[in-house]
Amino acid sequence: MFRKLLSFDEAKQLLRQTFSAKPVGIEQVSISKAHDRVLAQDVVAPMNIPPFTRSIVDGYAVKAVDTFGASEDKPVSLMFCGHVAIGESPNVVVENGLVAEIVTGAPLPEGADSVVMVEYTTRQKDNVFVHRPVSIGENLMAAGSDIRKSETVLKKGRFLASREIGVLAAIGLTEVTVYKRPKVAVLSTGSEVVEPGKVLSPGKIYDINAHTLSAAVLETGGEPINLGIIPDERGSLKKALETALSSADAVITSGGVSVGPKDFTPQVVDSLGKPGVIISGVAVKPGKPITIAVVDGKPVFSLPGNPTSSLFMFNVFVRPILVKLAGRTEEELPTLKAVAAKKMFPARGRRTFVMVNLAYDKTGTLLVSPVPTGLSGAITTLAKADGFVEISEKQQFVDAGTEIDVYLFGKFRKSETS
Amino acid sequence: MFRKLLSFDEAKQLLRQTFSAKPVGIEQVSISKAHDRVLAQDVVAPMNIPPFTRSIVDGYAVKAVDTFGASEDKPVSLMFCGHVAIGESPNVVVENGLVAEIVTGAPLPEGADSVVMVEYTTRQKDNVFVHRPVSIGENLMAAGSDIRKSETVLKKGRFLASREIGVLAAIGLTEVTVYKRPKVAVLSTGSEVVEPGKVLSPGKIYDINAHTLSAAVLETGGEPINLGIIPDERGSLKKALETALSSADAVITSGGVSVGPKDFTPQVVDSLGKPGVIISGVAVKPGKPITIAVVDGKPVFSLPGNPTSSLFMFNVFVRPILVKLAGRTEEELPTLKAVAAKKMFPARGRRTFVMVNLAYDKTGTLLVSPVPTGLSGAITTLAKADGFVEISEKQQFVDAGTEIDVYLFGKFRKSETS
Repeated sequence: MFRKLLSFDEAKQLLRQTFSAKPVGIEQVSISKAHDRVLAQDVVAPMNIPPFTRSIVDGYAVKAVDTFGASEDKPVSLMFCGHVAIGESPNVVVENGLVAEIVTGAPLPEGADSVVMVEYTTRQKDNVFVHRPVSIGENLMAAGSDIRKSETVLKKGRFLASREIGVLAAIGLTEVTVYKRPKVAVLSTGSEVVEPGKVLSPGKIYDINAHTLSAAVLETGGEPINLGIIPDERGSLKKALETALSSADAVITSGGVSVGPKDFTPQVVDSLGKPGVIISGVAVKPGKPITIAVVDGKPVFSLPGNPTSSLFMFNVFVRPILVKLAGRTEEELPTLKAVAAKKMFPARGRRTFVMVNLAYDKTGTLLVSPVPTGLSGAITTLAKADGFVEISEKQQFVDAGTEIDVYLFGKFRKSETS
Repeated sequence: MFRKLLSFDEAKQLLRQTFSAKPVGIEQVSISKAHDRVLAQDVVAPMNIPPFTRSIVDGYAVKAVDTFGASEDKPVSLMFCGHVAIGESPNVVVENGLVAEIVTGAPLPEGADSVVMVEYTTRQKDNVFVHRPVSIGENLMAAGSDIRKSETVLKKGRFLASREIGVLAAIGLTEVTVYKRPKVAVLSTGSEVVEPGKVLSPGKIYDINAHTLSAAVLETGGEPINLGIIPDERGSLKKALETALSSADAVITSGGVSVGPKDFTPQVVDSLGKPGVIISGVAVKPGKPITIAVVDGKPVFSLPGNPTSSLFMFNVFVRPILVKLAGRTEEELPTLKAVAAKKMFPARGRRTFVMVNLAYDKTGTLLVSPVPTGLSGAITTLAKADGFVEISEKQQFVDAGTEIDVYLFGKFRKSETS
């Protein structure tokens, strides 16, 4: 069992080398349920779109040659031969000298090769006067001009939002092959934690992590299986982890990875399969006691009990793996440049992530400062933060007045900071 | 019935004046279902967090006064009086001269006012030697120091993500009051459209809009009720709209708002209640034929049949209303500055939105150019676009080489544009 405290970069690299995160599977879903999913296969059009050549204006379908020389003063006179309705197969043929009335979206009738806009025509009963010439193909959308049959319309890996679902509907698909949502078991350990809603006896606190981590799993495109609080006892933990590993693609525990006498989580995890624990502590703040194992091809993340540390370690170590299991591209957090309002220091020898708030000063400068409560056990630290700054273990400090990158939690809304 | 073609700004203003969009209601949801919802009430803490003063280190609970003068060379000797476990009520009292062993997170026992870290102690059976003094309160997290009882921990309007759900769990809540998701009925009209999956007879195309608009409703925090395709006949449309208005908070139709003979949607909508149609056509491209009505307090948006126009009009007119019905803050689309690769013109007298693609040229300049297929009926126009640029009806053109703002659809991923 590996016990060296790795640097942040070493830990990230070792995890990448030991566990190759790939999508957990594929499934078919209805296009009405496909929103927010990721395509697992290229989508090839089974048909042309539009399926037929259609008019893009209201007017008259003609042979272009019949309109040559038409002008405002000297219109060409053509003979009405019928009407083409939208949604119907035309029952007219436009021979030379004839026109068929046509509406936007209706199929071009046989014989016609263009459409004159109604604005450039006048009509007296069956005589239609064309005041402007058109060229072949004018005012038409040719069959297959939007999507050609056998064309790849959407590529594997594409995230499906409203626009993409429109493309799927256009080519008549009712189902689509997407990556499965990875199932992620989430469990809390620790004899001090109690499920919210239950009575809190002295010395107990409500469990936070199973709830924050389940929500965080949702945010990565995964499906959380919240196993709740596991009694602080080897046998129960082992059984819960075995259940978790048999039903989920990844497991996240929190609590029980400090150095206290009851912190047997790493040993239990290590006993469940190979290679077992690969990372046992990382030189990072917050979150140093994080333990990461791979058990028979499934990652098991044992995060600290402290809610801020645990959610933060989720973001830096767990999220990058889960997005890959979900077939997603990792979304980089949005960043802003801001000016340090105070000098900030890294914890000695550790990659340090400082939770920060942003605020404009009177001159309009965007200032960044650490979230006031520096207490490591504070759940509000994360909730109050607009984002964080990363300070390398090699850096001595970030001086007040220097510009630094701020990673944002979601969007920075000016109104929320005032 | 109002028939003047309004400018884009006039239409937006008239809509704001006529329909005051407010959250449609509130409901209680479990915190496990609260992710992605919006708080409808301030959340006030019913208790202190932490509920008791706890140690933030492993060590010994002491009276600080007993450690005064302690040093590496001259440690103070105190007497072990018991152990305080995590999650339990302490059964010891720390009198002068005594220490109680304590672990991180355990409650401070009666009598003690601080904790000495285990690193600064040595122990011989029941004699604990303290090598450094501590001050009152040291290594403690005081009851209520994270969250104070009766404090407002999360404000009405706050979007609930993992961090916020952690705060709700911390204070023991199992349910939370959020804004209801507005129900939005979506229906397509037009005799040419057929539900995807069905056989496409000549002249027909698959319905796209009911699917794109339903997905777009989801993206705004609403709950789509997809009523599918309504037969192109007054009676059916009227019945469908009555059903939609009785079951939903807002209605979106598409198709049937051009000038063709069958475009009776505006008349039917106008007959359903007061004030009826307020906007009938807007000087905008794409989407000019958009019709907006308010029927007995519910907005009815009649969008063009063209999929790109209809989804685009959704974004500019419908989305701002739906987010307010959902109690959300409108998220501004992310913008980028880019250099126009080509001269771009507005449609005469109309606010023009040009779908564009972004690409870096060889010098690393981010260039913006219109999506190649300019065909107005192309479903792929939107799907292929990275975003759009807005050109005012008062502007003559955007010259090639000038820098302009590009509004992005979702995130601009460099990899997707190459």
